[in-house]
Amino acid sequence: MLVNGCETDLMDARDRGLAYGDGVFRTLRTQGRRPLWWRDHYAKLADDCAALMLTCPDEAMLHAEVCQVAEEGKGVVKIVLTRGAGARGYAPPSDQPLTRVVFHAPLPAHAQADAPEAITARWCVLQLARQPRLAGVKHLNRLENVLARAEWTDPSIFEGLLCDDLGAVIGGVMSNLLLMKEGELFTPDLGECGVAGVARTRLLRAVPRLGIPVHIGRLPPAAILAADEVMICNSVIGVRRVARLDETTWPHGNWTAILNSALYDDVD
Amino acid sequence: MLVNGCETDLMDARDRGLAYGDGVFRTLRTQGRRPLWWRDHYAKLADDCAALMLTCPDEAMLHAEVCQVAEEGKGVVKIVLTRGAGARGYAPPSDQPLTRVVFHAPLPAHAQADAPEAITARWCVLQLARQPRLAGVKHLNRLENVLARAEWTDPSIFEGLLCDDLGAVIGGVMSNLLLMKEGELFTPDLGECGVAGVARTRLLRAVPRLGIPVHIGRLPPAAILAADEVMICNSVIGVRRVARLDETTWPHGNWTAILNSALYDDVD
Repeated sequence: MLVNGCETDLMDARDRGLAYGDGVFRTLRTQGRRPLWWRDHYAKLADDCAALMLTCPDEAMLHAEVCQVAEEGKGVVKIVLTRGAGARGYAPPSDQPLTRVVFHAPLPAHAQADAPEAITARWCVLQLARQPRLAGVKHLNRLENVLARAEWTDPSIFEGLLCDDLGAVIGGVMSNLLLMKEGELFTPDLGECGVAGVARTRLLRAVPRLGIPVHIGRLPPAAILAADEVMICNSVIGVRRVARLDETTWPHGNWTAILNSALYDDVD
Repeated sequence: MLVNGCETDLMDARDRGLAYGDGVFRTLRTQGRRPLWWRDHYAKLADDCAALMLTCPDEAMLHAEVCQVAEEGKGVVKIVLTRGAGARGYAPPSDQPLTRVVFHAPLPAHAQADAPEAITARWCVLQLARQPRLAGVKHLNRLENVLARAEWTDPSIFEGLLCDDLGAVIGGVMSNLLLMKEGELFTPDLGECGVAGVARTRLLRAVPRLGIPVHIGRLPPAAILAADEVMICNSVIGVRRVARLDETTWPHGNWTAILNSALYDDVD
């Protein structure tokens, strides 16, 4: 584990990342001590930093730190960037260095190659608040995700789907949502809440090249239920088919494999 | 500074307080190495823990830690409680000890006895998102406050006032809002967003005993501008009169002194 480039598990307890969640993060896969999809992850990190008026660390330095903590075989690396430790009070200091935390974690069971292709999901009760200033950004204010994930303990349920307070479906607690309907791809608009993940971004770039029309927009729960195939995606699990959503089930379809190929084949 | 009762400035960089803002905090005044309004602060901390399904630490232990870090004279102590360090992923572990961070800070200039009784405020552009599940709670997801506070750097402006996305006034970036109009007290309802501070709670308990009617409800910006006296309050600054809000000014009034007395005279 590296904190500001030094091997340590410890950080300043006055850090604004702790005090206010004043920062952003990334969770990415590694293979052979190298990050997968690095260009996309760094671009997203830079965009998220800009949304919070943070200066993103140098790409080469961050890449070197990810490679340094990554272990042999397949794994996950998490990067946390915060506005640093220092002055009390909400006003963001302009002259203070960021805090960088970079650490490795083993690949979770559900991301192993032999994990099932299909998963079971449920609807969450919690409704996401709409905040356009923070929408799409993978920032450290994730209490909504924690509360939503706390709604179930049944280990057979892999993911919970969330709507906003107007009833639009936004995505999963830890994933983005994709639908196929009559050969066209639909995914929720994330202009008011949710996190725009790198796997979703890669798919939105790759799928049109396959000749599949893509629609980003408002999706009511009924649109999910009426879909031919429902999928979730993120950088760690890739694309997974939703076989069951509470009482609704879907038969096996081919789109999950097609989108997974598109996700991994896309330019790196 | 104490982290889990040990004298150190450092904490585990895998803490869920950093990862997700998964915790709550308090900022309270101390005098002669004792916390002011301790009973109210502990009650609020317990309520906020309950809202996040956290088990609040024992009152006597926490009180002892506050007294241990407090310095001579007047100061401020901050308490941060998080769901602890450990398992990755949003699911809250049930069996993991909380992290407690308790530290002292000097009394800020604007809270000194000789600080001016009146302040200048401005309207913020950022609109608070409405999330009833987190409303009122002083949790660690405070990016909205950081972004709102970043809207100005002019040191003559002390506070920014925030509305929600429906146009209701909620309060200040770091304070609660109070109005007097024709001898009655009005303060925004915090059922959908904002933080219900301890100073506000003490005033809502004390003011009716003075025979002053109290109204908690929806306040449009026009209600602020039409008020006889506008005030902000929190545990560190007490009650301060808003003398100017952008282009609107108010003459000196007596209510600020009356409410300040009520705030400090209330049962401790």
